[in-house]
Amino acid sequence: MEDLVIRADHGAVAHLTMNAPDKLNALSDAMLAALKAQLGALAEDGGIRAVVIRGAGKAFCAGHDLKEMQAGRQAEDGGRAYFAALFARCAEVMQMIPALPQPVIAEAHGIATAAGCQLVASCDLAVAAEGTRFGVNGVNIGLFCSTPMVALSRNVPRKVAFEMLSTGEFIDATRAREVGLVNRVVPPGALRAETDRLAQTLAQKLNPALRIGKRAFYEQAGKDLAAAYDYAGAVMVENMMWRDTAEGVQAFIEKRAPDWA
Amino acid sequence: MEDLVIRADHGAVAHLTMNAPDKLNALSDAMLAALKAQLGALAEDGGIRAVVIRGAGKAFCAGHDLKEMQAGRQAEDGGRAYFAALFARCAEVMQMIPALPQPVIAEAHGIATAAGCQLVASCDLAVAAEGTRFGVNGVNIGLFCSTPMVALSRNVPRKVAFEMLSTGEFIDATRAREVGLVNRVVPPGALRAETDRLAQTLAQKLNPALRIGKRAFYEQAGKDLAAAYDYAGAVMVENMMWRDTAEGVQAFIEKRAPDWA
Amino acid sequence: MEDLVIRADHGAVAHLTMNAPDKLNALSDAMLAALKAQLGALAEDGGIRAVVIRGAGKAFCAGHDLKEMQAGRQAEDGGRAYFAALFARCAEVMQMIPALPQPVIAEAHGIATAAGCQLVASCDLAVAAEGTRFGVNGVNIGLFCSTPMVALSRNVPRKVAFEMLSTGEFIDATRAREVGLVNRVVPPGALRAETDRLAQTLAQKLNPALRIGKRAFYEQAGKDLAAAYDYAGAVMVENMMWRDTAEGVQAFIEKRAPDWA
Repeated sequence: MEDLVIRADHGAVAHLTMNAPDKLNALSDAMLAALKAQLGALAEDGGIRAVVIRGAGKAFCAGHDLKEMQAGRQAEDGGRAYFAALFARCAEVMQMIPALPQPVIAEAHGIATAAGCQLVASCDLAVAAEGTRFGVNGVNIGLFCSTPMVALSRNVPRKVAFEMLSTGEFIDATRAREVGLVNRVVPPGALRAETDRLAQTLAQKLNPALRIGKRAFYEQAGKDLAAAYDYAGAVMVENMMWRDTAEGVQAFIEKRAPDWA
Repeated sequence: MEDLVIRADHGAVAHLTMNAPDKLNALSDAMLAALKAQLGALAEDGGIRAVVIRGAGKAFCAGHDLKEMQAGRQAEDGGRAYFAALFARCAEVMQMIPALPQPVIAEAHGIATAAGCQLVASCDLAVAAEGTRFGVNGVNIGLFCSTPMVALSRNVPRKVAFEMLSTGEFIDATRAREVGLVNRVVPPGALRAETDRLAQTLAQKLNPALRIGKRAFYEQAGKDLAAAYDYAGAVMVENMMWRDTAEGVQAFIEKRAPDWA
Repeated sequence: MEDLVIRADHGAVAHLTMNAPDKLNALSDAMLAALKAQLGALAEDGGIRAVVIRGAGKAFCAGHDLKEMQAGRQAEDGGRAYFAALFARCAEVMQMIPALPQPVIAEAHGIATAAGCQLVASCDLAVAAEGTRFGVNGVNIGLFCSTPMVALSRNVPRKVAFEMLSTGEFIDATRAREVGLVNRVVPPGALRAETDRLAQTLAQKLNPALRIGKRAFYEQAGKDLAAAYDYAGAVMVENMMWRDTAEGVQAFIEKRAPDWA
């Protein structure tokens, strides 16, 4: 199972490669279990400061494994219990990403469709190769992308999300950046280098500051303005009390590099 | 009254044409009543799979009927009860659109101002002719567009909405697409064809999937992430249990067209 | 203290100039106190209809005063109580801006970083000079910009905000407009004129309409659709009952300028 998601660490950056290229890295039961295991391990790994998720082969991820889903219909209940468990597991994995202490970058190429597009939307950041196509096209086979919608509609404007979901049409990487689904678009040959550069940038920050900040980012999002400020103010006070932050601020004043352990 | 909003069905697509061109299709009491009646009928019409709203003449819609509103001031209470009823009726019509089972496309041309701009914002999708101007310009006559703001501010970024509302200045169709108020911009001569193409695309989807998806789209929007996933997961399970979805998925696997009734 | 924020009125427009150019207009204790005093006075000033906030010298605002913050560590508690009070005061000033009866325009040039970027995000509108750089770069010194995040993440798409906060990298004025952080970008030599033009546009509106509208803008934002419409409808009824609005509507019908006191 671990071969389905290969982890390779480069310094403090962990790369997770979904490795079922013949299935366009479909989010099968096994793939979801492998992602869950890898993300769970990363959550406990204090040495890792940034995570990249990519896909082996010609696509990032084409969504759920439809053959496996159809096979689930053989159960006595027609698959109802299986589908409920599948979507719950998938939603659990997607929610592990914003909950992970480290920032997570999607490295998208080829296609990112349905739950694959949801995976991009669920990551904190995304870099895409020119030509990558993004879609939530389940509607084309009669299965509206309701769970991908949850992540997508928290990334892009309302009418853009509705168009993608209702027409099933794809958008390209350039449009994906315009609407907020990805952060950066680079030529395919530069994709890995750009993602690595971004991940290393994150890895060089003071790690506890990035962790406290990521948690605060999602925590404050749903609060009203006054409550969000009360919360974020408390986070900043905590942040200020660290030795390394005191050193970071002092180093900036003295125009020198900080002496961080 | 029915002549004020003309319904013409093309297959499974219903076109509603606001037909008071001499008043720039103002949302008079009668126009609102006609829209309410037509939308109410469409909500019960299982044969219609997509709806287009357009305006006859040189504009989409110029907002409320100001002469009628001024006449309302003759009442003993200076119009207070009338205005309250008018804005309530207008808000009811606007909220019928996201609540309608079918997706609704605004086909905007000429101008879409005040409650006319609100109508575009309230539709699920919008196509605009190049040169169309959008504005919430009530502030220019001393009447801040407070109810149009509700729909507009749920379509576009905060500062964009504030600028439009406070300056009363118009944005053109290109800018409207950039900020998320419309989905597509085409030359005026291609407007009807583009809207029809989009509506037919929607009409060809598996109808229950589009309906369950549209309802879920708005339902999940206000929920926190975990609650949204719980809800959307249950929607997808339901969707998976349909015979036509099973067929749609199977057809995709077998690389053939689905056999949908 | 008042010299730190210089107020100059041009007709009904008040210009507040942060005036500590040697410190890049850092939001020191004194600067925050001066802003609070000036904003508090403006809130009570019925003659002022629009407010511009700008910075003297080569930058709009570079955020908190780091030397002053470091000095706060000398307290017995290592600065904890001071930092808590500082962030609370800063958040109070930031929240005074949307709460102010008048619309507030940020006039940004040079750099707007950390709490300086938060100040831009907190304003209702923003005009920027070409070349202005915006950043929430506290992460670079180990202090994640948690409170600036509150304002920033309510202006721009989620992944854009996360990238700025986690990388500490700057965006330029053109990108800031694309993502919704500023409304207008003009050449540096045209900045003041453009801001003045926008402020005068706002000052010429019917003042109570703009005030009721601004309050409604933020009040309805967090409500669900039905509650937002109930609220906004009541606001519009109130607005309609004013003599000057009756006159404004009538003047529009009669194609003449309104006779507003």
